Amino acid sequence: MEAAPRTSNEKAGVTPLLTFSILSSFLKIHDKMKAAAMTLKKLAVDDPRRVRHSLKVGLTLTVISVFYYVKALYSGLGQSTMWAVLTVVVVTEYTAGATLYKGLNRVIATLLAGALGLGAHRLAALAGNDGKSVLLGVFVFLLAAMVTFSRFVPEIKARYDYGATIFILTFSLVSVSGYRVEELIGLAHHRLSTVAIGVAACMATSIAIFPVWAGEELHNLVASNLDTLASFLEGVGKEYFEQKLESHKNLEGASFLIGYKSVLNSKAMEDSLANFARWEPGHGHFGFRHPWKQYLKIGALARQCACSMQSLNGFISATEKSFEELRFQQNIKTACAVMCSESGKALAELASAIRDMRPPTATAGHLGNAAKVGSQVKMMVPSETTTVEEVLLYATMANLLLEIVHSAKHVADAVVQLANMAKFKHAEEAKSGVVKHNGDGESLHVVIDVRN
Amino acid sequence: MEAAPRTSNEKAGVTPLLTFSILSSFLKIHDKMKAAAMTLKKLAVDDPRRVRHSLKVGLTLTVISVFYYVKALYSGLGQSTMWAVLTVVVVTEYTAGATLYKGLNRVIATLLAGALGLGAHRLAALAGNDGKSVLLGVFVFLLAAMVTFSRFVPEIKARYDYGATIFILTFSLVSVSGYRVEELIGLAHHRLSTVAIGVAACMATSIAIFPVWAGEELHNLVASNLDTLASFLEGVGKEYFEQKLESHKNLEGASFLIGYKSVLNSKAMEDSLANFARWEPGHGHFGFRHPWKQYLKIGALARQCACSMQSLNGFISATEKSFEELRFQQNIKTACAVMCSESGKALAELASAIRDMRPPTATAGHLGNAAKVGSQVKMMVPSETTTVEEVLLYATMANLLLEIVHSAKHVADAVVQLANMAKFKHAEEAKSGVVKHNGDGESLHVVIDVRN
Repeated sequence: MEAAPRTSNEKAGVTPLLTFSILSSFLKIHDKMKAAAMTLKKLAVDDPRRVRHSLKVGLTLTVISVFYYVKALYSGLGQSTMWAVLTVVVVTEYTAGATLYKGLNRVIATLLAGALGLGAHRLAALAGNDGKSVLLGVFVFLLAAMVTFSRFVPEIKARYDYGATIFILTFSLVSVSGYRVEELIGLAHHRLSTVAIGVAACMATSIAIFPVWAGEELHNLVASNLDTLASFLEGVGKEYFEQKLESHKNLEGASFLIGYKSVLNSKAMEDSLANFARWEPGHGHFGFRHPWKQYLKIGALARQCACSMQSLNGFISATEKSFEELRFQQNIKTACAVMCSESGKALAELASAIRDMRPPTATAGHLGNAAKVGSQVKMMVPSETTTVEEVLLYATMANLLLEIVHSAKHVADAVVQLANMAKFKHAEEAKSGVVKHNGDGESLHVVIDVRN
Repeated sequence: MEAAPRTSNEKAGVTPLLTFSILSSFLKIHDKMKAAAMTLKKLAVDDPRRVRHSLKVGLTLTVISVFYYVKALYSGLGQSTMWAVLTVVVVTEYTAGATLYKGLNRVIATLLAGALGLGAHRLAALAGNDGKSVLLGVFVFLLAAMVTFSRFVPEIKARYDYGATIFILTFSLVSVSGYRVEELIGLAHHRLSTVAIGVAACMATSIAIFPVWAGEELHNLVASNLDTLASFLEGVGKEYFEQKLESHKNLEGASFLIGYKSVLNSKAMEDSLANFARWEPGHGHFGFRHPWKQYLKIGALARQCACSMQSLNGFISATEKSFEELRFQQNIKTACAVMCSESGKALAELASAIRDMRPPTATAGHLGNAAKVGSQVKMMVPSETTTVEEVLLYATMANLLLEIVHSAKHVADAVVQLANMAKFKHAEEAKSGVVKHNGDGESLHVVIDVRN
């Protein structure tokens, strides 16, 4: 090739170019597949329950399929197979609560709509052969329209949306089938039993084999959100007020500074978990009537707190330069750091109390300290060397921090309320099973006194 | 009864009590039904499209049912009826985008999984009669587990979640059916065509009869959220700074003060609408590739703005007393009112620009004014009669307002970006179809100069 005449240069240039472009597209595909593999691996490593869930779905489906495959071969009922398989695929969800919600909705809606469909058939039959199909059409129209409209009611949407769909589905199927009523009863019976078997299989798998409880997920999500907020405050206290203002270290992109954003966006997740948790039986430390709604309240207050943090974060990055030039006054800097770390400790204590399912103890003390220092900051401001601009910046900073302390107090109140509603016990009580009125109980009182 | 002897007093007391309790429970039921009726009426009046949607669902279902009812009677194919009806019930959603998403996912997943299922059948047949069911079981297990796991990938979850379910469903059904391959091909063909007919019917209804476009909903939601923020600012400017501080009017519960909360909670809705909007064809003023993602960006910035408003709102209610006692300095009060009303006007202009699909014009001017006044407030603060506490409060108030102006500017930038991406036109251009470089164009430049 090197000896090729000069005139074929262009051609010789094209071939390597072509080879190169083929190679590079292979490399691109390789890169993409590698990236996809990394994504999948990360999903699996981040939460191994995802892998377990996938295997569970495969297992349930295979068991039901094989069972019915064998049965269908012997009895020749190719069609009845279908409903059990279909039910398993459609009903199985990641959390036990979601599976229970869909399963129960499906069974009950199938039962009710089946009965109503049979009734509609009988009623329509009174109108003679010609009128029957017209009447059935009218019934289907009215029922579908009414049930569809009812799905716009928020309560129905939250608890019975899937049931409403299955209700319309079953009613229409029963109504439009060309069978006589006698055949239909047998068919309905058959269908209901296969649906019930499918649902039972899903529920059994989702509850008995490595269950993922929506309630527990909600519990952990709320606790970890409080932890995220705590680490924001502790990070700001330590890395910003204690170090950064000395060393001019660049904090941009620090992970603790952006964690609150995930808290701001967690409402939809919390709502859906709370909806599903209501369908779950008691599990672990959670009773059947565990106050799941209170978690939503805590979540809402945590988001309010995260909002204040966003304001603080915005203020910090907008005024970074100014503070560096002005040289933050030492006593104010320390006070701000204390406010941050104390309210951070309070939030961390709330998170750990939720996790351990015990009433929070040290929170009130930490928040009391933060508030006390906060009111002192106001008095500190005007030192002799302070310029007007400085005063303004300090004042805003102090007020933003006080707002965070304030909203952390609201969160603390909601967690105390949760502890009362769910009858959380102190570690000692939980062990002995008896409520003690000495020891820790008293120290709790002292802590509460500090708060008032 | 009045003449009854005294001894029967108790009995005579019981009967009215019983009557009363029956009556009261009837009244309670009556009240509940009345409340439910009111809820339904409100749902219908608030958005008549809900009623239309319900009627549409009823209509589609009736047409498909009757069509198949008649066909089933003549051809005896009781079972094929089912798939069309089932598809209509399951695929029809409120917005056209959601219906298209489910419909296309269903058809394509059915096609792919059907073909793969047939292939699996042929492959398993090679293993002989005994090995066949074992091999098919293994295939079902592997495929169900893998596809279920893939649903944890966020991109797949957002765009192909329903398709994944249908894929597992169809593959399992084809695999476990006890039919021979020759019969299966006929069955698969039949099933695919009924599913396709059902999907076509849903799509036709959702696009042709009073369509509710997810894209348009998103467009309007984002615009109305900006309006809500604007009315908060205008309300605070007028009712708080201009009037309340004079008249001590009670603002608690004022609707403009809590509107921002709905903005904070609109993320989930925006995300799902944007997901569905991608499936919609061009409609009205929206092209097929309308930049729906940019709306999510605007929405996120609007929520950031709403966060700052929450801080301001918290500050206002926490310091209400202090400001009343201190008597807000007149020039600062006016300045704050101007900042509020100017940034409110800017947000209202952004909302109206989005609605009219034209580039925002007056925004930069309003925001420039607000920022200018904001920087002046800082100089105003120290008047001779001002106490330290006053200075602190003023400073914080001014900084909170400046933060709102700042975040409104971010929203404005994102809207300008949207206008560029979606090629929004000025009213005159839209009319003449030609880009003019005089008149309004120049005044826009002037406005932008004010901003810098």
